[in-house]
Amino acid sequence: MYEWLDQMGREAKEASRYVAKLSQDEKNAALAAASAALRRDAQAILSANEADMAAAEKKGLSKGLLDRLALTEKRIDAMAEGILAVAALEDPIGEVTGMKTRPNGLIIGQRRVPLGVVGMIYEARPNVTADAFALCFKTGNAVILKGGSDAGHSNKAIVDSISSALENLGIPRGALQLIEDPSREAAAYFMTMNRYVDVLIPRGGRGLIRTVVEKSTIPAIETGTGNCHIFVDETADFDMAIRIILNAKTQRVGVCNACESILIHEKIADAFLPRLGEELKDKGVEIRGDEAVLARISGARAATEEDWGTEYLDYIVSVKTVSGIEEAITHINRYNTGHSEAIITNDYSHSQKFLDEVDAAAVYVNASTRFTDGGEFGLGAEIGISTQKLHARGPMGLTALTTTKYIIYGQGQVRA
Amino acid sequence: MYEWLDQMGREAKEASRYVAKLSQDEKNAALAAASAALRRDAQAILSANEADMAAAEKKGLSKGLLDRLALTEKRIDAMAEGILAVAALEDPIGEVTGMKTRPNGLIIGQRRVPLGVVGMIYEARPNVTADAFALCFKTGNAVILKGGSDAGHSNKAIVDSISSALENLGIPRGALQLIEDPSREAAAYFMTMNRYVDVLIPRGGRGLIRTVVEKSTIPAIETGTGNCHIFVDETADFDMAIRIILNAKTQRVGVCNACESILIHEKIADAFLPRLGEELKDKGVEIRGDEAVLARISGARAATEEDWGTEYLDYIVSVKTVSGIEEAITHINRYNTGHSEAIITNDYSHSQKFLDEVDAAAVYVNASTRFTDGGEFGLGAEIGISTQKLHARGPMGLTALTTTKYIIYGQGQVRA
Repeated sequence: MYEWLDQMGREAKEASRYVAKLSQDEKNAALAAASAALRRDAQAILSANEADMAAAEKKGLSKGLLDRLALTEKRIDAMAEGILAVAALEDPIGEVTGMKTRPNGLIIGQRRVPLGVVGMIYEARPNVTADAFALCFKTGNAVILKGGSDAGHSNKAIVDSISSALENLGIPRGALQLIEDPSREAAAYFMTMNRYVDVLIPRGGRGLIRTVVEKSTIPAIETGTGNCHIFVDETADFDMAIRIILNAKTQRVGVCNACESILIHEKIADAFLPRLGEELKDKGVEIRGDEAVLARISGARAATEEDWGTEYLDYIVSVKTVSGIEEAITHINRYNTGHSEAIITNDYSHSQKFLDEVDAAAVYVNASTRFTDGGEFGLGAEIGISTQKLHARGPMGLTALTTTKYIIYGQGQVRA
Repeated sequence: MYEWLDQMGREAKEASRYVAKLSQDEKNAALAAASAALRRDAQAILSANEADMAAAEKKGLSKGLLDRLALTEKRIDAMAEGILAVAALEDPIGEVTGMKTRPNGLIIGQRRVPLGVVGMIYEARPNVTADAFALCFKTGNAVILKGGSDAGHSNKAIVDSISSALENLGIPRGALQLIEDPSREAAAYFMTMNRYVDVLIPRGGRGLIRTVVEKSTIPAIETGTGNCHIFVDETADFDMAIRIILNAKTQRVGVCNACESILIHEKIADAFLPRLGEELKDKGVEIRGDEAVLARISGARAATEEDWGTEYLDYIVSVKTVSGIEEAITHINRYNTGHSEAIITNDYSHSQKFLDEVDAAAVYVNASTRFTDGGEFGLGAEIGISTQKLHARGPMGLTALTTTKYIIYGQGQVRA
């Protein structure tokens, strides 16, 4: 039934061997050509996007989603620039580490190599299409993309444009393929193509991530959900705490590294909570708190057990008082999603304890959780933020799209 | 129905927080105590093993399997020594790499930390029980073991012995747990406990590995199946080729890094194949070959398509002539299982091409595939050999049982 998907898989596998052999110069030249193609084909891409936008408006998509879907000349330019920025990054492929001569004379090292075929399933932002291609191609991988159905025409126009550039350079079309069938059945089949696809990266909402974790037989990297906490310790600088909380909660509410829950040391409840409440309400943030919070912040709603585990992605925050750092850490390790967690403190041993014991991809002392990002961490680019522990954890740059293989130079050695 | 398994998961998660906080000295002291306990409890472990052996003989287990199941005082001593050897290894936990100060003053580094809870599913060798515990504990992880049902009494005696040593030191019993229920249903439920278990490592035959890949919602590491090839190039030194092939095929036939398939450059078919045939037959190896092989080795059987993909784990080998390195690499990349592959050559560019283009965990020039092993590679110990590409590839030492977390020291930074 999905013979065409298997065929895609075979072509991707074959193309991956070709792309893996390209030199850095060849890969960068192809990325430059892809970037130029997007600029050249801007009108065709914009027309395709108009069709998507018209359908999306008819369907009644929310304003936020429509904005994410919309392309403009400026946005296409940014995509083209993004591809050049990836080309300019250092290529991790080929580096050999740990090479040593064993007592028997065998020379053994680990060489960094492409993963092979990367699968990406993502939702409505068409710029991810160009981005994912650039990162996968730069690291010598073939990629199969399954974008959101709302962006179907836009994604196809982007892929067609890049593919034409690759074709001119003799690169097999299996290097970049788009699954156009928007059905869940095709997606489900795709997730079982572990014969052809080496890793599956889902980018999107909780439902998508959960489906992939449950259904995929391809090794997958969980990304993105962030129930991020900020713990304000007894010795926190209040001004700093307010600045960081407002940044982490309100600078962009719909992102995975935004703060969703605030923990307050009970000894500063009287001094800090009323001020925190005013500042949050000024920014239009709804507060859901425990009893100590309700007693000190007017207009706050009572938090339910469910609130502690909720990633709002909205102007809502849960606030809880705790008896100290021990309870703060226990609460965080119980309810967090392994993304980003912060303590605001001036206590040295508490800062170390928090860094030691909180189980998350990124743990902060006295800074906003909003920094968890490939660019901010100095990785240059990002294919997603891993919230699991295998292979890659936290912002994933180029290296996350690679693996290693042992290379062994012998002179006839056999095992005794 | 499996509330008791969930309870195990919860206890493991809780214990993992405790074990993660132990210092190197504390972990090594506990490993020493566990080692001493095994020696002290040797008689009880031997009695338990006798019960397993009696049942296994009655069940008609093969001689090979009975030998793997059998414990002796010497083998228990080796287990105890093995735990001490793991204690003596360098502890990877706590190392911070790549720490740097970002332009905004944030200090960011990656700290190596335990995975948390490791799940292991394995077959009949009871020594794996002590081994897996030692490697997981050394790296600060809690572990849940599911051993083969034939070794049930032995595994329980080993775990009881180690647990008593840990209990004396106040270490929670969740640090080491054994699933005693031998049913497939319990195993299937265990594989879906991703809420509690951070990684699942199956060690055993193809059926077990496939089940885990298909059913597990816990991130799993595929290990162990090895359809390993040796390609004898036109310029190979024949003596070296024979020595390496005999070692890789016959030194131990039942292991994953043994050679299962030999590719011969067609130009040396006349000169090399008859000699190869004699040498293999002298060692009692059955040969399954293509037409060129059948014409030159008397007594060889015709290979079927299935043979090229078969890991015999026996005194059988498939032999195929190829037109050159290109065909050899294509054949290997089509039929191999990503384990270990070797070329025997004196051609410089062919050696590099083979290292570049063969897709496997370990790629050799002029050496036996039998070296793919944690000890031989200098890792000190091994929890298995990964034949997949995410997280760890090839022999997995202590580092494969760890992950990283970003730690960030700030001074009040917020994102612009």
